[in-house]
Amino acid sequence: MLAEIITIGDEILIGQIVESNSAYIAEQFTSAGIQLNRIISVGDNPANIINALSEANQKADIVIITGGLGPTKDDITKAVLCEYFNTQLIFDEEAFTNIERHLKYRNIPVNELNRKQAEVPENCKIILNTEGTAPGLWFEKDGTIFIAMPGVPFEMEAMMKHQVIPVLKKRFKLPNIVYKTVNTQGAYESQLAEILNKWEENLKKNGIKLAYLPSPGIIQLRLSCEGSDRAILTAKLENETEKLKKIIPDFIYGYDEDTLPQIVGKLLIKAGKTLCIAESCTGGMLSHLITSVPGCSDWFRGSVIAYSNEIKEKQLNVSPDTLCNYGAVSKQTVEEMANGVRHLLGGDFAIAVSGIAGPSGGTNDKPVGTTWIAVASSEKSISQNYLFGNDRSRNIIRASLTALNMLRKIVTIHSLDIRYKI
Amino acid sequence: MLAEIITIGDEILIGQIVESNSAYIAEQFTSAGIQLNRIISVGDNPANIINALSEANQKADIVIITGGLGPTKDDITKAVLCEYFNTQLIFDEEAFTNIERHLKYRNIPVNELNRKQAEVPENCKIILNTEGTAPGLWFEKDGTIFIAMPGVPFEMEAMMKHQVIPVLKKRFKLPNIVYKTVNTQGAYESQLAEILNKWEENLKKNGIKLAYLPSPGIIQLRLSCEGSDRAILTAKLENETEKLKKIIPDFIYGYDEDTLPQIVGKLLIKAGKTLCIAESCTGGMLSHLITSVPGCSDWFRGSVIAYSNEIKEKQLNVSPDTLCNYGAVSKQTVEEMANGVRHLLGGDFAIAVSGIAGPSGGTNDKPVGTTWIAVASSEKSISQNYLFGNDRSRNIIRASLTALNMLRKIVTIHSLDIRYKI
Repeated sequence: MLAEIITIGDEILIGQIVESNSAYIAEQFTSAGIQLNRIISVGDNPANIINALSEANQKADIVIITGGLGPTKDDITKAVLCEYFNTQLIFDEEAFTNIERHLKYRNIPVNELNRKQAEVPENCKIILNTEGTAPGLWFEKDGTIFIAMPGVPFEMEAMMKHQVIPVLKKRFKLPNIVYKTVNTQGAYESQLAEILNKWEENLKKNGIKLAYLPSPGIIQLRLSCEGSDRAILTAKLENETEKLKKIIPDFIYGYDEDTLPQIVGKLLIKAGKTLCIAESCTGGMLSHLITSVPGCSDWFRGSVIAYSNEIKEKQLNVSPDTLCNYGAVSKQTVEEMANGVRHLLGGDFAIAVSGIAGPSGGTNDKPVGTTWIAVASSEKSISQNYLFGNDRSRNIIRASLTALNMLRKIVTIHSLDIRYKI
Repeated sequence: MLAEIITIGDEILIGQIVESNSAYIAEQFTSAGIQLNRIISVGDNPANIINALSEANQKADIVIITGGLGPTKDDITKAVLCEYFNTQLIFDEEAFTNIERHLKYRNIPVNELNRKQAEVPENCKIILNTEGTAPGLWFEKDGTIFIAMPGVPFEMEAMMKHQVIPVLKKRFKLPNIVYKTVNTQGAYESQLAEILNKWEENLKKNGIKLAYLPSPGIIQLRLSCEGSDRAILTAKLENETEKLKKIIPDFIYGYDEDTLPQIVGKLLIKAGKTLCIAESCTGGMLSHLITSVPGCSDWFRGSVIAYSNEIKEKQLNVSPDTLCNYGAVSKQTVEEMANGVRHLLGGDFAIAVSGIAGPSGGTNDKPVGTTWIAVASSEKSISQNYLFGNDRSRNIIRASLTALNMLRKIVTIHSLDIRYKI
């Protein structure tokens, strides 16, 4: 089963955006056992789109097209598809009902452009867009399936995951590929690769593939294997995961779709504990990660973003002497911040972060990337110093994730009534 | 002058990475007036690479190839280029000297793999890699230029910017394409399209292209035109931008690379004012957007993330009666939150946000997406009600951007000593 992706949009060809839809689609195809042959990006140019469709028709069984289905004048994909499939646009009631529902929910009146979005090529099946107004279009020609989806990532992703992939899986006998992703925080890629060298060698002998998927602060290890019996494959991967747990227990925070704030939330709920936060250099990112988890109000009380020293003193009760003698980025300051916010907002645990995110503010002693993180409870507070990189946005996300992982390790041990250890 | 890009690597086709080299190259081409026809991504597969090269040869004047030039076994680009250009690898002294220099700087001994990197196809010119060891390769065939560069982004970027583009500019008379991007917040794509309908019709007559680039909470309008005189083209786009300012003054917050928090920061600095924040449903995202701006400590004091009603009462001084009578998501509550945080943290302006981000918590009266935003100063506080969608993460980003734009409008007017108006 060979696939191709055609992404459409002038914004791609002038370098205004980094096109990421194809990576999402590629990942979904890979998981489903569909092999992607190539990705083509073309502009909003009818001849180039038609040409890409013809080429794909010759080579691929499945062709995914994204972009250009919106309501504005530069969205020409639908017209070009009509030309290619020798058909015309007709008004689709079901698509229109979906558009009305979306707009009504947001109190937006339906205009002429919205009505036009309900016009679809006559010889295609439509795929309802659960996240937006432009319907997806499903064509078949000479044994090839063509699926056109909107270019807005979250609309395309929902359509791909919940509609396109399930239908393809039902219709075709796809190879069984089983995946298990182990999510780690706190180690660099080269560091992990060195620690895991022996274990990795052994994987190949067992017919298991490994991929490192790094993102700032997080490295996911994706294991996969192919075969006829899903249960055997799953057991094989579980076995390797158990081995991994013994080699890198501190780095592993979860599996597959698990996120670090979700895991921390589950641990706190289990322990019957609550959390509050004092952020300086992370500036709200740590709180944002936590409040991305629905229902976090069960365990998260709130935060103080203490960007100025004055707020650190007045609200968090950090002593002026501490700030003067040790500086805002110091063990003493973060520990006082953590204790201060715990008393102010009331919580069983408190995290405090203070660092130099950059690009300026670094010194010889404390270069850009220097970050202190403290975790406090009623019993004691502990802190640790980290040196991240020189990029502001990556430092902010790394510091936030590192703080969450530090809390995770402490809560895990705490709930077992064992002495704190990071 | 038509160009194509071929990016090579299995990691792209399995969705392991988001391929971003082509966006950089595309942007460099666009600025230089070279039109990019398409981008093709293929795996480490000789037949597919050869096929992509043949297709590009027929269509393009310039072909850029990235990836697969490294020293390891899966790097096959050089061998495939030898096959395609019917040539063989020879040892290149200049390339080797460059490799030696790089390794010496990092105290790494030269090994057999490094020597192999100095072997290049006989009929190409080499492009020295100032940032790494793999040389770039410049071929010409049937009037088409083929340039192969390493896939490591910073190596490729230095080669592209400092060597490839200057040579192409010297050799060809390239057209001028000028771009201007207008950044808007607060309008939906279909709404903007309707408002701008007449203006848009007129653009075409003036030879100007328009593209809508939407992302959650933000729509960018990209204008472009081509011609011989850069000054005339720039003036044409400026003229259209001035017209736009009159049609949608409230939605436009900036141009080109401007971000909303940057613009708000500049306005506050100009007005000599500071800002503090009380967040409920946005949970830290609004503070995070602000603290993404380096140097924001000049105008941003800090925030309280008041996720629980208890913190709204105790820290922000919201009256229990208000919470009981009107609820946490109400005009009264956000206005009290804004005034409360302004007194607590001290700032000329305060923003407060309270809403139902979802997925749960909605009622008939206040469905998921309902959000109240208030801005307070020493003089008065004003607030507005919004209804966003049903997706938690998008509601959070939309509410944050909407709050920033609300403040932007108020500060703009305030600094002119005119009465508040949203």
